[in-house]
Amino acid sequence: MWNEKQIEEYLKNNLKESRYKHSLSVRDTAVELAKKYGEDEFKARLAGLTHDCAKNMNHKEIIAIIEKNGYNIDMVSRNNPELLHGLAGSIIAKNVMGIEDEDILNSIAYHTTGRKEMSLLEKIIYIADYVEPLRNFPGVDKLRETVYRDLDEGILLSFNNTITYVISLGQLLHRDTIDARNYIIIEKCR
Amino acid sequence: MWNEKQIEEYLKNNLKESRYKHSLSVRDTAVELAKKYGEDEFKARLAGLTHDCAKNMNHKEIIAIIEKNGYNIDMVSRNNPELLHGLAGSIIAKNVMGIEDEDILNSIAYHTTGRKEMSLLEKIIYIADYVEPLRNFPGVDKLRETVYRDLDEGILLSFNNTITYVISLGQLLHRDTIDARNYIIIEKCR
Repeated sequence: MWNEKQIEEYLKNNLKESRYKHSLSVRDTAVELAKKYGEDEFKARLAGLTHDCAKNMNHKEIIAIIEKNGYNIDMVSRNNPELLHGLAGSIIAKNVMGIEDEDILNSIAYHTTGRKEMSLLEKIIYIADYVEPLRNFPGVDKLRETVYRDLDEGILLSFNNTITYVISLGQLLHRDTIDARNYIIIEKCR
Repeated sequence: MWNEKQIEEYLKNNLKESRYKHSLSVRDTAVELAKKYGEDEFKARLAGLTHDCAKNMNHKEIIAIIEKNGYNIDMVSRNNPELLHGLAGSIIAKNVMGIEDEDILNSIAYHTTGRKEMSLLEKIIYIADYVEPLRNFPGVDKLRETVYRDLDEGILLSFNNTITYVISLGQLLHRDTIDARNYIIIEKCR
C-alpha cells in the first residue's frame, strides 16, 4: 500500500489545486470526527485524503474504469456520471494505491450519494466532505454545529438539504441517497 | 365483475362519506383526463371510482390482506402502512369486485407512491387523486392548470411537492416515488 506521501503526490498530480486543498481539509475534518465519535483515526485520515482522487477524471474515463471493473451503472448515474466519481475513486484507491480495507473503499465509493446502513466511517467521510472548513454555502454553520453535536442529525439535515436542492434544480435523485436518509430516520427512532 | 352500482354500494358501506364523495370526484376527473390525453374512458372511470376502496381499513387489516396475498412489504411501507392502502385496494378490486384488468389494478395499487415507467392510466389516476375539484391545498390551482396543459409536467410538480413536504415532516420517502419522478424527467428529456 502507498504511504501518505505517495498518495499526496498522486493527488497533487491529478487534482486541481483547490481540490487538493479540499482533500487535505476533508482528511483533517474526518480525523476530528473520528476522535469525537470513536472511529479509527488512521482509517478516517486515509479515506478523507483519498475520497476525491477520481474527481478530475472526465465522464468517459469514469464510466470506462467502472465498467472495466465489472460494475453495473444504474440509470440515474448513467444520466449523471458525476455521481460515479466516488466509485471510480474507490477503484483507484484499491488498484493503484493498494488500499484493501473494505470500509475505507466503501467510504470513498459512497461519499456522494450515501447508501442504506452506512458504517460510522462512511458517515464521517460523507459529512466531512460537506462541512470541512473550506466549504462555504448557505446553512453550512448550522450544519457544522449539528454534525459536531449529533452525527446522524447532521447527516439527516445534509440529506434533506441535498434532496431539496436537487429537486429545485429539476435533476434526478439517486435511490442510494433516499435509502440512506430512510435508514438514518429509522435508526434514530429505535 | 361487479357493475358500477355494486361498486358504489360497496364504497358507501366501507368509506366515510367524504371519502366516498372524493372517490366519485376522482372518477369524474379521471374521465376528463382520459378524454384529454387519449386513455380508455371506462378504465379511467373504474380505476378512479375504486382507487380508495381500502382507505378505511386499519393498518393491521391492510398488512394482513397484503401478506395473505403473497406480497412482500418493504421497510418504508412497514413503517408507514398508510402507503399500502393502494395495494390493498387493488386486491379488493380483484378478489371482491372481480376487476381483472392489470392496468386498472396497477393504477389502484400505485396511486399513492407512483412507480417507475407509469402507464398513462396510472398517471391519470395518480394525478386525478390530487387535483379533483374537492381537493384544496396551497398550490392546487397551479397544479390543476399544469395537469391540464401537460400531464407529465403536472405529475413532476406533484412529486416535487410531495417529496419536499415529506422531508419537511421528517418522514420516510418511498423509493417508488423517487423512481417515478426520475423516469418522468428522463422521459421528458428524450
